[in-house]
Amino acid sequence: MKIGVYGLGRFGSFWASMLAEKFDVIGYNRSKNRPVPPEITVAEEREVLKADVLFLCVSISAFEDIVDRIAPMLGENTLVFDTCSVKVHPAELMEAGLPKKNEIIASHPMFGPDSASRGLEGLPMVFCPVHARKETVDYWRSVFLSYHLKVLEMSPEEHDRKAAYTQGITHFIGRVLEGLELEESEIGTVGYHKLLDIVEQTCNDPVQLFLDLQNYNPYTKEMRTDVSRAFDRTLHMLDSLHKFDRY
Amino acid sequence: MKIGVYGLGRFGSFWASMLAEKFDVIGYNRSKNRPVPPEITVAEEREVLKADVLFLCVSISAFEDIVDRIAPMLGENTLVFDTCSVKVHPAELMEAGLPKKNEIIASHPMFGPDSASRGLEGLPMVFCPVHARKETVDYWRSVFLSYHLKVLEMSPEEHDRKAAYTQGITHFIGRVLEGLELEESEIGTVGYHKLLDIVEQTCNDPVQLFLDLQNYNPYTKEMRTDVSRAFDRTLHMLDSLHKFDRY
Repeated sequence: MKIGVYGLGRFGSFWASMLAEKFDVIGYNRSKNRPVPPEITVAEEREVLKADVLFLCVSISAFEDIVDRIAPMLGENTLVFDTCSVKVHPAELMEAGLPKKNEIIASHPMFGPDSASRGLEGLPMVFCPVHARKETVDYWRSVFLSYHLKVLEMSPEEHDRKAAYTQGITHFIGRVLEGLELEESEIGTVGYHKLLDIVEQTCNDPVQLFLDLQNYNPYTKEMRTDVSRAFDRTLHMLDSLHKFDRY
Repeated sequence: MKIGVYGLGRFGSFWASMLAEKFDVIGYNRSKNRPVPPEITVAEEREVLKADVLFLCVSISAFEDIVDRIAPMLGENTLVFDTCSVKVHPAELMEAGLPKKNEIIASHPMFGPDSASRGLEGLPMVFCPVHARKETVDYWRSVFLSYHLKVLEMSPEEHDRKAAYTQGITHFIGRVLEGLELEESEIGTVGYHKLLDIVEQTCNDPVQLFLDLQNYNPYTKEMRTDVSRAFDRTLHMLDSLHKFDRY
């Protein structure tokens, strides 16, 4: 079985290397400037799109154009996975734009090179089958279970709602704090070091991922409003306690 | 040598138990309802205040009243440490309100029952000597080094400035997020779990500690203003990117 990885950016390279532990992996990247790990064979776009299984590792905001572009070149029997960090948007686009005979599984590996640096055990991998045979889903679930991932099946809506209040809020807080240029400190507490870890981990990802997570998930706007209100309530509580306010 | 711990709340009990590993510890708490760990001998207020070394483990906002209360009862040769999470405020009060002949070291053990649950190694302990002989400071530095703590000497101002942007910001973010009632999630990422840890750890502490950290440190107001601005900039950046805004 040949696996194609379309897009070899920060996540795509990581993902292709992980798959190359168990499969023959070919990869394509539009830009040729980025170094490709040696375990991945670089191939032409048309060849990658005709692999037995194709993983799309492209940015969420490019996804619509990519679906339009690849649809006419896709192998007849190619199983298509996306790996976007939102699911309603790409699942709709793949369903509408890819040939009806291709099997499609929308998926979200909820980790990356930083968060998987201590191993894959128990990390979440979400499946939202768009249209795929039960055997296909079962096979790929077993593959990812063999990597010790936690495979969860849910609807794109359920994924996006839950992700807004978990991954989405974490990236939002990380990017807010990025603006403060917090630094390692000799008096840093255990909690402060966790805060620095969050900033580092979320801000190591491309800023485009942050923007896309916030803009292409139907539930993140509500999450941000909730955070705003909680922020204002906390400031208000502090301001109303003038009896304590010495400075 | 007899050690007295004045205040056996969440932090005071933890601190007294830690000291009881190496010293004979007597403790006093105003309220008698709270269970006291067996390694601490409960004693009368007057007896605790005459111990060779006294650790004040009371809330920051109660500190002024406590200094007024204990000054006339303090043992003539008692060395006094406070353990408040801010340092300018208690250092000023102790210097002004305690007898001139008592040695005084303002201190901040920058950990507690939660953050020390995995051991004390490398956790920061700040000393701000108010007036104490060099031998006294050296002796107590060596005691805390023997617990594998990282002992740092600095002025109260330096402590408060650095603490506002480390411990202070962490507690502020933790309390903002507390209002959202975030929960464990099956799709929680590594970063999200760190965020939950921060909320749990900061909100396990008494809310009074949070209010005092924010109100009695001369630098936290500026920190909160900085966070507010970073928050607004992030929201503004997202709002200005309407081309991506699908939802």
